[in-house]
Amino acid sequence: MAGRKKRSTKTGLPPGSLVHLGDRKLDHARVTLVDYGSDGLEEKQFDTLAECQACTPTQPIQWLNVYGLHEPEILAEVGRRFDLHPLVLEDILNTDQRPKLDEYADYLFVVARFFDYDDKSMSVTSEQVSVVIGRQFVLTFQEKPTGNFNPVRDRLRQDRGPIRRAGADYLAYALLDTIVDRYFAVLEGLGERVEELEEELMKKPSSRVLGTLHHLRREATILRRAVWPLREVINGLTRSNRFFSAEVQPYLRDIYDHTVHVIESLETIRDLIAGLLEIYLSTVSNRVNREVRVLTVIAVIFLPSSLLAGIFGMNFRHMPLLDNPNGFFLVIGLMLGVAATLALLFWRRKWLG
Amino acid sequence: MAGRKKRSTKTGLPPGSLVHLGDRKLDHARVTLVDYGSDGLEEKQFDTLAECQACTPTQPIQWLNVYGLHEPEILAEVGRRFDLHPLVLEDILNTDQRPKLDEYADYLFVVARFFDYDDKSMSVTSEQVSVVIGRQFVLTFQEKPTGNFNPVRDRLRQDRGPIRRAGADYLAYALLDTIVDRYFAVLEGLGERVEELEEELMKKPSSRVLGTLHHLRREATILRRAVWPLREVINGLTRSNRFFSAEVQPYLRDIYDHTVHVIESLETIRDLIAGLLEIYLSTVSNRVNREVRVLTVIAVIFLPSSLLAGIFGMNFRHMPLLDNPNGFFLVIGLMLGVAATLALLFWRRKWLG
Amino acid sequence: MAGRKKRSTKTGLPPGSLVHLGDRKLDHARVTLVDYGSDGLEEKQFDTLAECQACTPTQPIQWLNVYGLHEPEILAEVGRRFDLHPLVLEDILNTDQRPKLDEYADYLFVVARFFDYDDKSMSVTSEQVSVVIGRQFVLTFQEKPTGNFNPVRDRLRQDRGPIRRAGADYLAYALLDTIVDRYFAVLEGLGERVEELEEELMKKPSSRVLGTLHHLRREATILRRAVWPLREVINGLTRSNRFFSAEVQPYLRDIYDHTVHVIESLETIRDLIAGLLEIYLSTVSNRVNREVRVLTVIAVIFLPSSLLAGIFGMNFRHMPLLDNPNGFFLVIGLMLGVAATLALLFWRRKWLG
Amino acid sequence: MAGRKKRSTKTGLPPGSLVHLGDRKLDHARVTLVDYGSDGLEEKQFDTLAECQACTPTQPIQWLNVYGLHEPEILAEVGRRFDLHPLVLEDILNTDQRPKLDEYADYLFVVARFFDYDDKSMSVTSEQVSVVIGRQFVLTFQEKPTGNFNPVRDRLRQDRGPIRRAGADYLAYALLDTIVDRYFAVLEGLGERVEELEEELMKKPSSRVLGTLHHLRREATILRRAVWPLREVINGLTRSNRFFSAEVQPYLRDIYDHTVHVIESLETIRDLIAGLLEIYLSTVSNRVNREVRVLTVIAVIFLPSSLLAGIFGMNFRHMPLLDNPNGFFLVIGLMLGVAATLALLFWRRKWLG
Amino acid sequence: MAGRKKRSTKTGLPPGSLVHLGDRKLDHARVTLVDYGSDGLEEKQFDTLAECQACTPTQPIQWLNVYGLHEPEILAEVGRRFDLHPLVLEDILNTDQRPKLDEYADYLFVVARFFDYDDKSMSVTSEQVSVVIGRQFVLTFQEKPTGNFNPVRDRLRQDRGPIRRAGADYLAYALLDTIVDRYFAVLEGLGERVEELEEELMKKPSSRVLGTLHHLRREATILRRAVWPLREVINGLTRSNRFFSAEVQPYLRDIYDHTVHVIESLETIRDLIAGLLEIYLSTVSNRVNREVRVLTVIAVIFLPSSLLAGIFGMNFRHMPLLDNPNGFFLVIGLMLGVAATLALLFWRRKWLG
Repeated sequence: MAGRKKRSTKTGLPPGSLVHLGDRKLDHARVTLVDYGSDGLEEKQFDTLAECQACTPTQPIQWLNVYGLHEPEILAEVGRRFDLHPLVLEDILNTDQRPKLDEYADYLFVVARFFDYDDKSMSVTSEQVSVVIGRQFVLTFQEKPTGNFNPVRDRLRQDRGPIRRAGADYLAYALLDTIVDRYFAVLEGLGERVEELEEELMKKPSSRVLGTLHHLRREATILRRAVWPLREVINGLTRSNRFFSAEVQPYLRDIYDHTVHVIESLETIRDLIAGLLEIYLSTVSNRVNREVRVLTVIAVIFLPSSLLAGIFGMNFRHMPLLDNPNGFFLVIGLMLGVAATLALLFWRRKWLG
Repeated sequence: MAGRKKRSTKTGLPPGSLVHLGDRKLDHARVTLVDYGSDGLEEKQFDTLAECQACTPTQPIQWLNVYGLHEPEILAEVGRRFDLHPLVLEDILNTDQRPKLDEYADYLFVVARFFDYDDKSMSVTSEQVSVVIGRQFVLTFQEKPTGNFNPVRDRLRQDRGPIRRAGADYLAYALLDTIVDRYFAVLEGLGERVEELEEELMKKPSSRVLGTLHHLRREATILRRAVWPLREVINGLTRSNRFFSAEVQPYLRDIYDHTVHVIESLETIRDLIAGLLEIYLSTVSNRVNREVRVLTVIAVIFLPSSLLAGIFGMNFRHMPLLDNPNGFFLVIGLMLGVAATLALLFWRRKWLG
Repeated sequence: MAGRKKRSTKTGLPPGSLVHLGDRKLDHARVTLVDYGSDGLEEKQFDTLAECQACTPTQPIQWLNVYGLHEPEILAEVGRRFDLHPLVLEDILNTDQRPKLDEYADYLFVVARFFDYDDKSMSVTSEQVSVVIGRQFVLTFQEKPTGNFNPVRDRLRQDRGPIRRAGADYLAYALLDTIVDRYFAVLEGLGERVEELEEELMKKPSSRVLGTLHHLRREATILRRAVWPLREVINGLTRSNRFFSAEVQPYLRDIYDHTVHVIESLETIRDLIAGLLEIYLSTVSNRVNREVRVLTVIAVIFLPSSLLAGIFGMNFRHMPLLDNPNGFFLVIGLMLGVAATLALLFWRRKWLG
Repeated sequence: MAGRKKRSTKTGLPPGSLVHLGDRKLDHARVTLVDYGSDGLEEKQFDTLAECQACTPTQPIQWLNVYGLHEPEILAEVGRRFDLHPLVLEDILNTDQRPKLDEYADYLFVVARFFDYDDKSMSVTSEQVSVVIGRQFVLTFQEKPTGNFNPVRDRLRQDRGPIRRAGADYLAYALLDTIVDRYFAVLEGLGERVEELEEELMKKPSSRVLGTLHHLRREATILRRAVWPLREVINGLTRSNRFFSAEVQPYLRDIYDHTVHVIESLETIRDLIAGLLEIYLSTVSNRVNREVRVLTVIAVIFLPSSLLAGIFGMNFRHMPLLDNPNGFFLVIGLMLGVAATLALLFWRRKWLG
Repeated sequence: MAGRKKRSTKTGLPPGSLVHLGDRKLDHARVTLVDYGSDGLEEKQFDTLAECQACTPTQPIQWLNVYGLHEPEILAEVGRRFDLHPLVLEDILNTDQRPKLDEYADYLFVVARFFDYDDKSMSVTSEQVSVVIGRQFVLTFQEKPTGNFNPVRDRLRQDRGPIRRAGADYLAYALLDTIVDRYFAVLEGLGERVEELEEELMKKPSSRVLGTLHHLRREATILRRAVWPLREVINGLTRSNRFFSAEVQPYLRDIYDHTVHVIESLETIRDLIAGLLEIYLSTVSNRVNREVRVLTVIAVIFLPSSLLAGIFGMNFRHMPLLDNPNGFFLVIGLMLGVAATLALLFWRRKWLG
C-alpha cells in the first residue's frame, strides 16, 4: 500500500513531474548497456550521468537496463536520448502501476511485475519492471538489481539459441518470458503450501489453519490482480505487428498461452483454498457439535443414578429397602445397570463418537 | 438519497424546466472566469448577472466556473451565451446524476463527482461537478466553492507545465485528472481503516467490528457506483477525437489507467472487507462454541462427585464406609481423584482451550 | 401469475387470435383521441364502436388512448384503421408481456409497464401499457383509466413547453418519460422502507424483520425483471432514426440515462437488503449463542455449591465441621465465596454479556 | 441419464452409423404425411416401408411426421428421399441431444424438446423432437405418438388462420410455437408448487419441505438446460432469411420473445426456490436454538431450588430453621419465590418464547 | 502438479530446448506409421531412429503416431521431416499443457487430453495427446501406448465408413471425435457416483460423504479446466477452412455440439454436487441440533423429580408426609406423574423426534 499512499501526496503536481513514488531500494542508480548483434556483443556499465551521456552504440541492437529509480536526472537523460514521452517516464517512476501496454509511434511501453514468494512468511512480494520496446532497442527499468534477467544476459553473452541473430523484438520476448516463468515458481510455492494445509486439515484442523488459509487467499488475490492485466498486455503485443516480426509472433502466442495457464492454475488454487475453508468450517462446527453431544450424553447417563441417590436420601420413615442389608448394593447395582443400559443405547445410535 | 426524493416531486414538469434538485449549499452563486492563452491570463469574478453579461473574452481560451446552482437565471444566461442544450442545463441542476458523457455537436458534456472521505464518521461524501468541454472553452459547475480545482488554477497563474501553451482539451484533462486523483485519497482512507480493523479483529473481535465492516462495505458500494461509470466516461473521451488533439490523447489514456487502478483497488478493498466479515463470523461462532464446550466440560467434571455425594447421602442402614473414621476423607479423595482424572483427560484432548 | 396461467389455456389457438389474457378491470372500454398541432387541439371521447368509426382527424398529429382491453372488436377496429399487424393486437391484449420493442415498417411497437408501490402492504404492482409510435400518430393502450398520462395531456392542453410544436416522436418521448419517472417514486418507497428496517434492525432484531426483508427482496426482483428489458427498449429507440428526429434524440438519451440510474438504484437496494439479511442472521445467531452461554455460566456458578451441599449431606459418622456450631455458616460462606469468585471470573472474561 | 449412458457404448463406431440411442417407446414406427396447399389437403399414414416408398406428393407442401425411432431403415429411407446428411439422421436417433440448429444447404435441422410436468411426482420429463425445415417440406421426428402437434394438424384440416395459404416456413413456425407454449404449462405447474411450498413453509416448516425444494431446484435446472439453447436456436432462425420469408419473421420474433419470457420466469422460480431454502434453513436453525434456550431457562429456574434443598439436607448439628415448625414451609415458599422471580425475569426478556 | 513443478526447473533455458517435462512412462519410444489412401493401406512400426529415417511414404496420406516422449532425438527427427516449429516440439514434450490450437502456415497444432476415470479411487486421470494436422498427414504424440486410437486404426484397416476415401482432415476429425467421446465415459462414471452418493445421503449422512463430495468436486474442476479450452480449440477448427474441407465441416460442428454437451453435463454434475453438499451440511447440522434437543428434554424431565427428592431429603424436624406410611410412594408417584406429564407435553410438541 506504500506506493498508493504516496500517490495522493503528488496530487496537484502537473503531469510529467518526475517524482519517484515508492521506497528507495538502492543507494546509487546503475545503468548497464548491452550492445549486440550477430557479429559481436559489448557490455558497458555507467555509474554517473556523464559516462552515460558520452557513450555511443556500435552494434545494431541496444539493451539498456536501469537499476534504481530515485535519481530522476538519469531517467530524464535516458528519456531525452530515446525520445520518450513524459508520461512514460512518470509511469516508470510510479512503481505501483498495474501491468499495462501503451503504444506510442516509435516504441511500445510495457509495465509488468516480477513476483517472489517467500515460503516462510507465505507472502508474495512483487517489484515493478518497465520495458520500452523500440525497433532497435529495448530499455528495462527496475528498482533494485535482482538478477532476474541474468539468464537472458547469459544467453546473449554465450550466443546460445537464436537470440543474437534475432532482432530487438526477440530480446523483448525473452525478457517477458522470464517474467512469466517467475509466476510458475510462485504458483508452485503457493500450491505446495495449500496441499500441505489440506493434509494438515484432514489430520487435525486447528484454528491456525483458518488464518493461514485467509492469508493465502489474500496473496492469491494480489497475484491475480497482476496476472489478469498481464494477459491483456501480452494479448495486445500479439496484435502489434509494427514491432514484432512474423517470426517472433509464435513465441508471443506461446507466452500468451503461459499466462492463460498461470491464470487457470491460480483460479484452481483459489478454488482449492475456498474448498478447504468450507471443509475447515464445517469440520470444526461438526466437531464442536459432536463434542457437546458427547458431553450431554455423559450428563444424561448420570441423571437417573443421581435421582436414585436423591430418592434414597429422602427422610421418610417408611421406605422400602432401607433396612435390607443388601439394599445399598441393590441400588448401586440398579444405578450401574441403568447407566450401562443408557450407554449401550447411545453407543448403538453412534452418539458417542 | 435527498436528491432522489426530490426527483419524484418534479414528475410532470416538461423536460428542460430549470429546477435545482439538491440542497442549497451556498447563499449567492459566484461565477469566475479565467481568460488565458500563451500570451497572458486574466481572472474575473462576477457576483451579479449584469456583470457577467457585460464581459467579453480577450484571450483564446476561457474557463468559466460557477459555484452555487440555486439561481437558475445565471445558469440560463451561461446557457444562452454558450448555446447549451436545455437538457444539459437540467442535468447540471439535478445534482444526483451518475457520471456520464453526452456528445453534442459543439461541445462535450461530462458529469462527474468529487469524493471526500471523513475518517471520523468513516463516511464517503460526494458532490457533483459538471464539465462542458468546447473547442475554445471549458465550463465547470459545482454546488459550493471547495477549492478542488485550485491546483489547476495555480498552474495556470504560475504558467507551470505546458498548460498555458496547450488548448482547452489539455485544461479539461487537467481538471478531470484532479477529480480522479481525489479517488486515491478516499481509497487510502478506506484502506487504512480496513487494515486497522483487521488488526483489531485479530486481537479481539467485538460486535462493534461487525457494524463497522458493514458500514465500510456500504461506503465502498457507493464509491463503486460512481467510479464504474466514470471509467466509461473517460473511455468515451479517449474515443472522441473531435475535441481532444492527438497530443492530449496519451494523457487521457493515463487517466483511464488511473480509473482502472482505482476500480481494482476498490475491488480489493471490497474483497478484504468480505474476507474480514467471514473471519469475524467464523471466529465469533467458534469462540462461543468453544466457550460453551469449556463450560460443559466443567459441568461434567462435577457430575461424578455429585453422584458420590448423593450416594453417601442415602439413608440405608447398612452402608459401607459410613462407620469408617476415614470414610469421609476417602470419599472426598475419590471425588478429587475422579475430577482430576477427567480434567486431565479433557485437557489432553484439548477440550479446555 | 394470473396472466401466465391463462396463457396456457390459449395453447392451440392460431397466432393472432384476439383473446384478452388478464383480469377484466373495467366495465366498458373507453377511447379518447387528442387531435393536435401547433395551430390547435381537439379532444374527443368515444364510448361505442360506431362513434369511433365515424371520426376523422383534423390536425396533423393524433394521440389515441384506449382504456379497457376486454372488448376485442374495438381493438380490431383500431388495428384496421392504423393497419396494425395481428401480432401487435395480440400482444396488446396479452397483459403479462415483458417490456419489448418491435419494429414494423410503418410504426414502432413498445410494451412497457406502469409501476405502483403500496407502502402499507409493501407490495409493488404493475400494469401493462402498450404504445404504438407512428410518424403522425401515437396509440396507447391500458387496462383501466389510471390518470398516469394526465401530466402530458395537461401540457398538450395548456401548450406548455415545445410539445405542441414538436412531432409525434416528442409526444412518444413525453409518454415514455412519464413511465420511467414512476420508477423513481417506487424506488423511493422501497428505499425508505429498507432504511426504516435498517434502523429497526439496529435497535432490536425481530423475526418479523426477516419476513419483511425477504418480501422486499422479492418485490425488488419483480421490479428488476421489468426495468432491465425497458433499458433495452429505450436503447433500441435511440438507435431507431426512422421515427425519432435528431432533435428528439438527446431527450431519448436522457430517458436512457434515467433507466440506467433506476437500475443502479435498484441494485443498491438489493445489495442493502442482502446486507441487512446477513446482519440479521448473524445478529440473531450470535444473540442466541450468547444467551445460552450466559445461562450455562449461571449453571456452572451453582455447581460447586450444590456439590458442597451434597458432601455435607452425606451420612458418614465422622465428618469434620458437622459438630462445629458455626459449621453451617462456614459452609454457606464457602458456597457464597466460590460462587462470587466464579461470577467475578466470568464477568472479567465478559462471558456474562 | 439413460441416453447419456448409452452414448458411451457407441464409442468407436464410425460417425453416421444409425443406432437408436434411447429407450424403445413404441412397438412399430409410424409415418404420417400431410400433403397440403391452399387448394386442398391430403393425409396419409404408412405402416410399412414399402407404402412409404410408393407415395408421391400431390400438393405444394409436405409435412412428414415419424413416430418411433427404433427402425433405422425407415429413417434411412426418409433420409434418401429428402437427401439428408448422415449426421442429421444420427442426431435424430440420438435422443438426448441438447436443442440446436444446424444449417445445411437445402434445409435447416432443429433439435428441440417437448416438456411435461407431472404434478404428483413433481418431476419434469422431456422428449426430443427433431424438425427438418426445407423450402417445400417439414419433417418431424418423435419417439412416440404424443398428440403434441394435434392442434396444428387440426388447424390445417379445418383451414383456420393463414396456415394453408402460407408456406412451409409458417408451418415450421406453428410447430415451434406449440413446443414453446408447452414450457408455459410446465412453468405454471412448477410455480404453483413453489407457492404452495411457500405457504406451507410460513405455517410450519418440516424437513420434508427441504427435500421438496431441492427436488424442485433440480427440475428447474433440467428445464433450464433445455430452454437456454432453445433461445439460441430461435434466435438463429430469425437470422436465417433463406428459409423464412419476411412475412413469417415477426412470428419468429414473437416466439423468441416467448422463450425469453420463459427463461425469465424460470429464473424467477429459481430465485424463489433459493429464497425459500434460505428462509427454511434460518427458520429451522432459529427454532431449534430458541427451543434449546427455553429448555435451558427451565433448567436454570430449577437450580436455586435444588441448591436450597441440598443445603437444608446437610447434616450439621446446628442449623437455623430446622427446628422451626414452619421451617419447611418457609423454605418451600423461598423456593417458589426464587423460581417465580427468575421465570418473571426471563419472561420479560422474552427468553421463554 | 508434477508437470508444473518441473516447469520451473526449466526457467532460464532458451525457448525451443527439447526437454521432456513429465514422468517417464515408457521404456522405449515407439513410432507407428499408417500410410493409406482409397487404394490401399500399409502399416509400419519403427523402434530405432535409423529405421524411421529410411522410410518413405507410398500412399497419399500418412498418419504417424509416436508413443513415449523421453527420447527427444526421435521427436527432433520427426520435426525435421515434417518441418515443425521448435515451439511445437517443445509443447509436445511439455505434457501439462492446457488444450490449445496453434495455426502455422503448413499445419495446425492441437493439444488435447485423454481422460480416464477410475471408479475405485474416484479419481480422474488424464494424458496429453498432441495432434499435428497437415494437408496430407496427421501426427499424433502420446506419452505411452493406451490403445485409445485403436477404433480409428481398425476402421482404417477394415475400410469401414468413408475414412479411407476422405482426406487427412477426416482422419483428424475421427481422432478428435475419439477424444471427445472419452469425456462421456468419464462423465457417466462421475454421474453414477454422485447418484449413489445422493441415495446414501438420503438414507444416512455420514462424514465420509462430505470428503467424497469434496473429492468429486475437485475432480470435476480438473475435468472442467480441460474441457472449456477444448471447446475453444474445436470452435477454432470449425473456423479454419484452410485445412478442413466443406465436407468435413459438419462433422466438426458435430464434435463441437458434443463438447458443449459435455460442458453442460459437467456443470449439471457440479450443481448436483454443490446441492448435495448443502443438503449434507444442513442435514447434519439439523440432526445434531435435534439430538441435543432430545437430550436436553430428557434432562428437563428429570429436573422436578430430582428437586422433589432433594426436598424430602431436607432435615427439618417438622415436615409433612414423612411419617405417613405411604408418603414415600406418594412422592414416587408424584415424580412419575410429573415426568410423564412433561414427556407427554414434549412429545406433543414433537420435541422428542
